Amino acid sequence: MLQRTLTSELGSHIGERVRVQGWLHALRKMGEVNFVIIRDRTGIAQAVASVSDLAPLSGLQNETVIEIEGLVVEAEAAPGGYELYHNQIRVLTPVTDPLPFSLNKNRIRANQPAFLDHAVVGHRHLQKRAILRLAGGVMAGFRSILGEQGFVEIQTPKLMASATESGANVFAVEYFGQTAYLAQSPQFYKQIMVGVFERVFEVGPVFRAEKHSTRRHINEYVSLDVEFGFIDDHFTVMAMVTTVIRGILEHLRTHYMAELALLEAELPTIGESIPHIHIVDAQQLLRDRYGANDAVGAPDLTPEHERTLGEWARGQHNSDYLFVTGYPMVKRPFYTHPDPERPDYSRSFDLLFRGTELITGGQRLHRYEDYLAAAAARRYDPAPFETYFECFKYGMPPHGGFAIGLERFLTQLLGLDNIRLATLFPRDMARLTP
Amino acid sequence: MLQRTLTSELGSHIGERVRVQGWLHALRKMGEVNFVIIRDRTGIAQAVASVSDLAPLSGLQNETVIEIEGLVVEAEAAPGGYELYHNQIRVLTPVTDPLPFSLNKNRIRANQPAFLDHAVVGHRHLQKRAILRLAGGVMAGFRSILGEQGFVEIQTPKLMASATESGANVFAVEYFGQTAYLAQSPQFYKQIMVGVFERVFEVGPVFRAEKHSTRRHINEYVSLDVEFGFIDDHFTVMAMVTTVIRGILEHLRTHYMAELALLEAELPTIGESIPHIHIVDAQQLLRDRYGANDAVGAPDLTPEHERTLGEWARGQHNSDYLFVTGYPMVKRPFYTHPDPERPDYSRSFDLLFRGTELITGGQRLHRYEDYLAAAAARRYDPAPFETYFECFKYGMPPHGGFAIGLERFLTQLLGLDNIRLATLFPRDMARLTP
Repeated sequence: MLQRTLTSELGSHIGERVRVQGWLHALRKMGEVNFVIIRDRTGIAQAVASVSDLAPLSGLQNETVIEIEGLVVEAEAAPGGYELYHNQIRVLTPVTDPLPFSLNKNRIRANQPAFLDHAVVGHRHLQKRAILRLAGGVMAGFRSILGEQGFVEIQTPKLMASATESGANVFAVEYFGQTAYLAQSPQFYKQIMVGVFERVFEVGPVFRAEKHSTRRHINEYVSLDVEFGFIDDHFTVMAMVTTVIRGILEHLRTHYMAELALLEAELPTIGESIPHIHIVDAQQLLRDRYGANDAVGAPDLTPEHERTLGEWARGQHNSDYLFVTGYPMVKRPFYTHPDPERPDYSRSFDLLFRGTELITGGQRLHRYEDYLAAAAARRYDPAPFETYFECFKYGMPPHGGFAIGLERFLTQLLGLDNIRLATLFPRDMARLTP
Repeated sequence: MLQRTLTSELGSHIGERVRVQGWLHALRKMGEVNFVIIRDRTGIAQAVASVSDLAPLSGLQNETVIEIEGLVVEAEAAPGGYELYHNQIRVLTPVTDPLPFSLNKNRIRANQPAFLDHAVVGHRHLQKRAILRLAGGVMAGFRSILGEQGFVEIQTPKLMASATESGANVFAVEYFGQTAYLAQSPQFYKQIMVGVFERVFEVGPVFRAEKHSTRRHINEYVSLDVEFGFIDDHFTVMAMVTTVIRGILEHLRTHYMAELALLEAELPTIGESIPHIHIVDAQQLLRDRYGANDAVGAPDLTPEHERTLGEWARGQHNSDYLFVTGYPMVKRPFYTHPDPERPDYSRSFDLLFRGTELITGGQRLHRYEDYLAAAAARRYDPAPFETYFECFKYGMPPHGGFAIGLERFLTQLLGLDNIRLATLFPRDMARLTP
C-alpha cells in the first residue's frame, strides 16, 4: 500500500499516484464533474470526481474520515495549487449525523454559546484551529527565548495547603479529609526556586474563583510565569519582559506565518525599547485631559484611562506597548517591593498593549523580616505562609518577575472579541463542559 | 560597576577583575589563607581570602547572598580550574539562622521527611538541583522530538464536570455551587483534539485521589501525554513511543552531560527497536519459570513478574526496555480498542523499563457506537460523557496514544529510591506543604 502523503506535500509528487487521508471538508456536486475537498492537519486539497467515484460517500455527511488515492496534477486555481485525478475514495469512519454547524465556511454560523457547546468539533474549523495552533506557538516562543536566557523550566504543585495571597477567590478541594486549595498562581514557588536556579519559568494552569462574567475573564487559564534573581529593580524585570515579548513575536513571525495570514492578523512591532510612564505622571496626564475628578485621583487606572494611555503611547512614542510603573502599594500584593524613595509606591509595573493590561510584574521583597512585616501590616496570619517564607530566611537575592496570561495574550494579539475563543474549553461560572 | 560574571565564565577572564554573585556555599578557614566558595546558577568558584577579607562574613551563615570582586587566576586544583584573588566581598542578603541541614556536602544528612519539610532550601544542594534541572530537560526533549514529528501542543482544562473514567479516585472541587473534579488525565481532550490537529501532546499536572502510600506514587504529578490519528494499530503507537524515548535520551545526552555526570547516571541505550512480547506469551514464559499458579494465571502482571520479564529482555534482547502487549480488556479502560482477532485482549501495551512499568498506551475506540457499547458493557452512565463522545459522532480516525509520568521517568532513569525525590514539592496523603 502507498505511504500516506500529506496535502501540503502534493507538490513533490506531481505525476505520481498518492494516498491522502483526512476529513471530508466539502463536497461540491456540479453534475458530471465534482469536487471532493479533503482536509488534513496541514491543509486542504481537492480531488476531481465523477459521479461513480462519489458512490462511497452516498448518504454520508461532511467530516466523514476518508482516504483518496489519486494522481497529482498541477492546477493553479485549486486550493494549494494541485488536484487529484482518477481517484479511488475509501471511507475510514462514516459520519451520518448532520453537523451542529457548518465547518467549511469562512465564518462559523453559530452564536458563541452554541459554538462553545460543540467546540469538540467546532475547533476543526480552519480559522479556529489556527488560533489554537498559535497558542502552542506562543508557549514555544516563550520557552525558547527563556531557554536562551538561561532560565530553567519548573512545574510546581497546583494543590496547596493555603491560598497564595489573601485567601479570597480560591477553589477548595477535599483532600483526604483536609481542605486543599487550587493554586491561584505559582508565585511563592517560583520565588523559592530563584534560590535554586536564579532564573525559572513555568507554563501551567492557574485557578481563580472570581465571580465575574466578562469577555476578559475565565476561571482557569494558562499562566506563563517568569521569576529571576540578581536584579537591580523592576526596570531589570521590564527589560526581560521586553526581551520575552520580542522573542515570542519573532517566533510566531518565523514559524506561524500561515496561521497569521489565515487569521489576517498583523503582528505588532517593538522598537528599541518599550516606553514607560510612572503612575503619578500618568495620572497627571489624565487630569490634564479629563480634569481633576475622583476617578483620576483613585490609586488604580480605569479601563478607559488605560485606553487613553494606550492612545498616548501610540501618538507620542509610536508604540503598541506601554509600561505603567510604580503603582501604589495598596493596589499590589503584599510581597511587592516598595520604592525606597517613595514607600507608598511600588517597584511594580503593568504592561499595556493597545490600551489594555497584558502583563503585571515587579520586584518582590527578598528579606525574611520584610515578609513578616508586610504580612502583619495587612493583618494576614503568617502561619499558613511559614513553609514558603522559610526560603527567605536562608538567603534570597533581589528578585522579581512577571506573568503572562496565555489566553489574554492571544485574545489581544488577534483582536478576538472574547477570551473564550482563545482557549480549548473555557471554564467560567456557567461552563464546566465540554 | 563591573558587569556580573558567572562562575562558568571565569575562563574567559583570566588576568581580569570580575564581579561574581551567588550564595556562600562554603567557607574554609585555614588561618592566614582562607577559601570562600561561592555558588551561582552555573556552578561554584573559589576565592582566596585573607582574614581581613572575611570581615563582612563575620557572624553569618552559609547561604548568605554575596558578591565578590576579584582577579581571575588559573588554578588547576581549584573547583572549575580558576581562583579569585585580591577579593572584595560584599553581603547582599545576610543569613543568620543556622541551616536545617548542610547543603555543601556530597549527601544531605537528613532523613527524607526532614528533607521534604525543608525542600525550599534543600533543593539548592548541587545534586538535588541537578535532578530538577533534568526534569526540565526531559520536558524539553519530549516537546522537541514531538515538534519534529508534526505534533501540536495543547493545554486542556483541569476542572471537569465528570471523572475521566469510572469516577473512582477523583478529587472533588467546590465550583460556584456545583461539584467539579480535577482531571485524572487529559484522555478525552487529547482524543478530541486528534480530530483537530491529528497529532497532539500536552505537558501538565494530573491528579489522582488514590489512597496509597508507596515509594512509586504521588497524588499530583506531571503527565507527558501524546495522542495521534491515522494509525494502523497499537504497533504504530509503540513505534512513536520508541521515537519519543530515544529523542528524550538524545536531548539529555546533548544538553545535560554535566548534570548526569554529577549524579553518576548512565543513560540507557535503545537498539534498532524495542522488543515486545504478548501478555499470553509473557504468562507462558512466567509459568515455565514459576510453574502454574494463581498469580501467573491472573490477567495482570505482579511487580515480581515485571522484574522477571525485565531480566528476560536484558538477557534475551540485551534491552533495558520491553513492550508487553495485548493486556486483557478487563484490565484496561473502557475506551481501549480490542484486538479484533482476540476480542478479550486489547490493542494496548505497557512499556517496562528495567523491569518496572514506565508507560501505558494503546489504540482507542474511534466509533461513536463503540463508545456507547463499551460504556454500557461496564454499566457506566453515559450521560456525563456525552459532550466528549460528541466528537466521535463527527468522524474520528483510528488513533491511539500514551502517557509518561515525568517523575516516574526520572526516578527510574536516575535510580532514585523514591519518586518524591524527583519532583519539587510532592503531594501525598500526608503532605500538602511546602
